[in-house]
Amino acid sequence: MAKDKGPRRPRAETPKGFRDYFGAEVTERAAMLSTIAGVYHRYGFDALETSGVETVEALGKFLPDVDRPNEGVFAWQEDEGAEKAGDWLALRYDLTAPLARVFAQHRNDLPTPYRRYAMGPVWRNEKPGPGRFRQFYQCDADTVGTASVAADAEICMMLCDTLEEVGIPRGDYVVKVNNRKVLNGVMEVAGLGGEDRANERGIVLRAIDKLDRLGPKGVRALLGEGRTDESGDFTKGAGLGDEQADLLFRFIDASDDVRRLNTGEVINRDQPIYGASILDWNRKILESLGRLVADSKEGTAGVSELLEIVGYAENQGYSEKQISVDPSVVRGLGYYTGPVFEAELTFEIADEKGRPQRFGSVAGGGRYDDLVKRFTGQEVPATGVSIGVDRLLAALRAKGRIGGAAARGPVIVTVMDRERMADYLAMAAELRSAGVRAEVYLGNPKNFGNQLKYADRRGSPAAVIAGSQEFERGVVQVKDLVLGARIAADASLEEWKENPSQVEVPRGDLVATVRAMLDR
Amino acid sequence: MAKDKGPRRPRAETPKGFRDYFGAEVTERAAMLSTIAGVYHRYGFDALETSGVETVEALGKFLPDVDRPNEGVFAWQEDEGAEKAGDWLALRYDLTAPLARVFAQHRNDLPTPYRRYAMGPVWRNEKPGPGRFRQFYQCDADTVGTASVAADAEICMMLCDTLEEVGIPRGDYVVKVNNRKVLNGVMEVAGLGGEDRANERGIVLRAIDKLDRLGPKGVRALLGEGRTDESGDFTKGAGLGDEQADLLFRFIDASDDVRRLNTGEVINRDQPIYGASILDWNRKILESLGRLVADSKEGTAGVSELLEIVGYAENQGYSEKQISVDPSVVRGLGYYTGPVFEAELTFEIADEKGRPQRFGSVAGGGRYDDLVKRFTGQEVPATGVSIGVDRLLAALRAKGRIGGAAARGPVIVTVMDRERMADYLAMAAELRSAGVRAEVYLGNPKNFGNQLKYADRRGSPAAVIAGSQEFERGVVQVKDLVLGARIAADASLEEWKENPSQVEVPRGDLVATVRAMLDR
Repeated sequence: MAKDKGPRRPRAETPKGFRDYFGAEVTERAAMLSTIAGVYHRYGFDALETSGVETVEALGKFLPDVDRPNEGVFAWQEDEGAEKAGDWLALRYDLTAPLARVFAQHRNDLPTPYRRYAMGPVWRNEKPGPGRFRQFYQCDADTVGTASVAADAEICMMLCDTLEEVGIPRGDYVVKVNNRKVLNGVMEVAGLGGEDRANERGIVLRAIDKLDRLGPKGVRALLGEGRTDESGDFTKGAGLGDEQADLLFRFIDASDDVRRLNTGEVINRDQPIYGASILDWNRKILESLGRLVADSKEGTAGVSELLEIVGYAENQGYSEKQISVDPSVVRGLGYYTGPVFEAELTFEIADEKGRPQRFGSVAGGGRYDDLVKRFTGQEVPATGVSIGVDRLLAALRAKGRIGGAAARGPVIVTVMDRERMADYLAMAAELRSAGVRAEVYLGNPKNFGNQLKYADRRGSPAAVIAGSQEFERGVVQVKDLVLGARIAADASLEEWKENPSQVEVPRGDLVATVRAMLDR
Repeated sequence: MAKDKGPRRPRAETPKGFRDYFGAEVTERAAMLSTIAGVYHRYGFDALETSGVETVEALGKFLPDVDRPNEGVFAWQEDEGAEKAGDWLALRYDLTAPLARVFAQHRNDLPTPYRRYAMGPVWRNEKPGPGRFRQFYQCDADTVGTASVAADAEICMMLCDTLEEVGIPRGDYVVKVNNRKVLNGVMEVAGLGGEDRANERGIVLRAIDKLDRLGPKGVRALLGEGRTDESGDFTKGAGLGDEQADLLFRFIDASDDVRRLNTGEVINRDQPIYGASILDWNRKILESLGRLVADSKEGTAGVSELLEIVGYAENQGYSEKQISVDPSVVRGLGYYTGPVFEAELTFEIADEKGRPQRFGSVAGGGRYDDLVKRFTGQEVPATGVSIGVDRLLAALRAKGRIGGAAARGPVIVTVMDRERMADYLAMAAELRSAGVRAEVYLGNPKNFGNQLKYADRRGSPAAVIAGSQEFERGVVQVKDLVLGARIAADASLEEWKENPSQVEVPRGDLVATVRAMLDR
């Protein structure tokens, strides 16, 4: 063959950083999304589904005048000949940017406040890593068009309800709440207020975010002149004086105490902390934060917003173990302007080295007031939360709370006699009519062993067997594959002799026999 | 301001050909997909979810050596610096190409035959038009790895079950079945067999597909030398002689009779046609087709496959009005190799000019045996169906079979006194605990009229009203907004006086009162 003839075979591969989801992985996620949608809907949130593709201009994280503005996103240009040839399009990287676009575009037709939920895939053009994919699901609820702190409180309470409804019991999660205004207040008191100190504030925020990893000493270095890491690389610090750093550390220490509390180092939340029982925890920590930011108007406003949230939560019967003020919650995104929240699962699972580890964050959000302004010039207050559906699924799987019957394969009607296909199809149809998942083996029926191997691979709970003898005598054989596997593993001699895993029943008893088998 | 400072505001617009879906549009589709998934699952099909992004190489409709191979798809190159820099990626244009890739990639781990279903958006880089979008949903079920005609029959029967389960009653749909082999057989008998006549066969197929639009005369011209249309443009024909064209017309006429039958021109399917009652229709038309292709091995095989499908359908109790042989079904896609099917809704709806029109096709599919071979070199037989979810939803909406209570807005707890927010939140929470969708109005409460306007825009069935007087007296007002609207429209004087749409009840009766209101 000429070598330029017949192109080589294409590789059967997903692109790097993408993956396929099979069977229960798909249905369990669908079931969880449906449950979450149910809670959101009950709270008055309306569904919104935008397309995966937006103009880069509307997504807005990127400058429209850059030649290839796809840093972090998948982007391409409209073809020549298209109506808007040359326009940059991109896959959405979250569900918040499209919401801002929708609200700006349809604000005259939408109710205000607009409560909406959205769920679906988002895409990031980032370097993939273990467990880190370039397409993943988000599941958001946002309230756009109200500055009321009741909206933030509602999101926190709804988050509690959602976690419990998908199967995380009370006590296994905490929704931690903080307020960016408090953080800004602390920085203001430390002399870091004003437009011209934005750079230092950024360094401080990032330093606080690294407390877990660097410890107090490392953070203190970053607050001061800077820090040299193990490799010898130097990171420039915020250049704060000792007094400023001390003030920030009073804030950080409070966070740290809470973190110790949450990670179990100070083990029992019902024990007194700061001289207060858990029943007063939220108010005590807010008192302490209030003293810290007493000289900052913004900081004081932040504390009072948190007090309002805590008040609503108390009033609705949410305990301090469910909704808990935690000054360590910073949240990476720059656009938060008020309350921020993070839902953490508090139970431990084994990490890759087998060490027990807290499961950690599964949802986060907060108030952001500037996203719509880009389009309209008007500031539109908004608040919302995003649930990391895949992490939440992983948590439920780790706790054995999903899986089981839903992931069970179909009953397999085996084929002993090709000429009887119509009869086999009828058996499967009868089973399905009775609500039993069932199918006929449609591979090559010659090797019966292959049919049972197929049933095994499908995770089938039972197989139906009928050859010419059975048809003549008006009976079928039904094989309990679950029991069969158990007997094969550890049967007594009697059990072997009895072979209770396979029974012969009249054809008319097929459905009843299979159902009884599945129920036991 | 300097003119290069502050970029202009971005446009709040979807890209051309994309749209947003709101509220019930989203939840009704989700409910339908969930119903369909339930049927597919019961038939033993397993869920598969691939990512929206594939390599252009794996999608395979396009040549990997073309500079910009995105004809019809949205494609872009991996960034410089990425592991596979320069590789072309694209959004999937259907769910079948990814299935072929998955089966080739995972064939050693997947059961064979592999029954899988998939649902999700696909993208086409095409010129958008009215009702024609560049992102839309598909919902597919396929069986890969079996040549058994029982698999094709199963798909047809499952399609009937699916249509009925989503709300299309028996009699309102027909699954039309044909076989590419019969079509090939007719062409073979007409002397159009063999590799070197592929071009003519293509022209013939396209001509038959245009029968509706061009009529028999136009088709005959295309089978012969060619046809000049109204604008004067000439389309070259297949160059067939009279005898060949006559033979094809005996096939086309059969199709045409069936089409007249289906479009109601020959009105009653229970009336004798070809001298046969509807009970014999499938077998009579197969006899007629069998005579036509008697000299072609492939054509005869095609007829016998259709007989097998018809036999299974009869045996399972599917009538000829549900699964009906129809030689007019050609199906555009080139890759079909055997049975092809199309589900049509047979009821009429008004078109844009108000004329009654058959709703038409909502699903289609068939057997395709070559898709996996691209990757592995081995031929893997497969068959499947794709449901056009959005068209099916449109049909159900046109018939008034979805909508109603599910699309209802939440009960609105209005805010008369800002200081009582905790109480209002408690009322909404109580209602939700009783399963009632409810929310507190969180906009500016100053203008009470705005709150009722908001409730109206949300489609709220009821509003709860409580000011300081009500709190003092331990009561609430509940306003029936549905009844209120009806009374506003056509009340008698008595009704006006009674004002039965608003009641005052003890605070403790709030939930019971609202529930009774929603139930009536």
